[in-house]
Amino acid sequence: MPPAAPFRFQTRIRFIDTDASGRIHYTAMFRYFESAETEFMREIGVVYEKGGLGFPRVHVECDFLRILGHDDPIDIDVCLTQLGKSSMRFEFQTWKEGELAAKGAIVVVCIDKNTQRATPIPAGLRQKLEAKLETGA
Amino acid sequence: MPPAAPFRFQTRIRFIDTDASGRIHYTAMFRYFESAETEFMREIGVVYEKGGLGFPRVHVECDFLRILGHDDPIDIDVCLTQLGKSSMRFEFQTWKEGELAAKGAIVVVCIDKNTQRATPIPAGLRQKLEAKLETGA
Amino acid sequence: MPPAAPFRFQTRIRFIDTDASGRIHYTAMFRYFESAETEFMREIGVVYEKGGLGFPRVHVECDFLRILGHDDPIDIDVCLTQLGKSSMRFEFQTWKEGELAAKGAIVVVCIDKNTQRATPIPAGLRQKLEAKLETGA
Amino acid sequence: MPPAAPFRFQTRIRFIDTDASGRIHYTAMFRYFESAETEFMREIGVVYEKGGLGFPRVHVECDFLRILGHDDPIDIDVCLTQLGKSSMRFEFQTWKEGELAAKGAIVVVCIDKNTQRATPIPAGLRQKLEAKLETGA
Repeated sequence: MPPAAPFRFQTRIRFIDTDASGRIHYTAMFRYFESAETEFMREIGVVYEKGGLGFPRVHVECDFLRILGHDDPIDIDVCLTQLGKSSMRFEFQTWKEGELAAKGAIVVVCIDKNTQRATPIPAGLRQKLEAKLETGA
Repeated sequence: MPPAAPFRFQTRIRFIDTDASGRIHYTAMFRYFESAETEFMREIGVVYEKGGLGFPRVHVECDFLRILGHDDPIDIDVCLTQLGKSSMRFEFQTWKEGELAAKGAIVVVCIDKNTQRATPIPAGLRQKLEAKLETGA
Repeated sequence: MPPAAPFRFQTRIRFIDTDASGRIHYTAMFRYFESAETEFMREIGVVYEKGGLGFPRVHVECDFLRILGHDDPIDIDVCLTQLGKSSMRFEFQTWKEGELAAKGAIVVVCIDKNTQRATPIPAGLRQKLEAKLETGA
Repeated sequence: MPPAAPFRFQTRIRFIDTDASGRIHYTAMFRYFESAETEFMREIGVVYEKGGLGFPRVHVECDFLRILGHDDPIDIDVCLTQLGKSSMRFEFQTWKEGELAAKGAIVVVCIDKNTQRATPIPAGLRQKLEAKLETGA
């Protein structure tokens, strides 16, 4: 079975997200990754932070490959590449005019908001995520 | 009795708070106002959002008078100018090298976090605030 | 002639734009106003900050009327309500499920980036803006 | 010769930097890293982005180890751990009450703003940086 096509999120670089270099401030890429992840999750029927579970990030990283400026349209591809007992790894690729402009990854842990400790991803959510898992095979 | 001297908060314009115009992005001024307000409140012995009360903003405004750029040191004066049954009005003046660079105001309402509705400012907090009230006389 | 219908921009409240109160951080409304204004300008054929002109804000204000939380869909209506020799006033209304959640205004001045001083709005831009001016009559 | 003591930057988690989880939004840690790096550079006599050179980030990463909330005081230690022909690697450790709360790294490239391409770090800046280089020996 071929891997699932990545989920694609589209946006533009907003002026507030630029800095005095004239380009995007790098932290804004994580803002756009968050939007992309939220829409990926919505597509599989999940809205974060609506119940008793929290999804804090425990690791994030990004490489910046091309210059992005105000109003540039970008496409962000989201893949779920690992699914642990209570963690998920998402990988992101940001494209500008067909060229890779940034690539990043985020590791999210599912926690119980009451205890603030890691808890297994519930079966219903796990099932939805498994259907989207990119095995890289 | 002379009015209380305004509380002064000092910071620098951070790079992340600039935009591609080369100047500060205007929304960052509200970030600095918030820090100034937090430190004003700390000085009178209050830490926001630690108990059952919330302090959302219901009105904000700002005039921008001078150009501010990356790394510029600024002084922000905070005055409490109105104290209602459940609301407070803070006024801010931002100075750069002795010249007024921005002036703004924020109206905050005290709410009960459970009901999400306005509630009278508790007597202890009111007493602390009254001591700082600028009557403009 | 009836007034032009306001331009409408749609978005969702992003998680990064909330704060520990559980609601939107008020400054994020200005972020969304900026996106709405950018898209309004795009519709009339203008992309800010691409030439020798800058458009800093000299006055901003907002009233917050209803609670907005993570992932809430909002509609923002943009009207151009004043057009001076070198300034523009935009008014914004933010709707959530048909109820007014925030209303704000922004005054923008057209400047020459080289001199950093106000300059008349160029005739071509003025003509496009006049077609959108809400006279309130 | 013992390694140079790391540069330490102190701040508090600002309310605007929290999110609806009740904790810091992770991207704010990069904001604080930027302030720490700016102050580190100021200590050695350098102010970024004041001349013809730019310093974009080409790689960033961070691990989040402990919960940080509104108003928590944090200490951020900054070390320069690599110094290439035109690049620098900074490592950051964020401490809360003596416990490691986050650790990150940022790779910065020195570019010529006119060409937007990498350029060797100028001799004067290199000399200042070499005096701060942590060799890990």
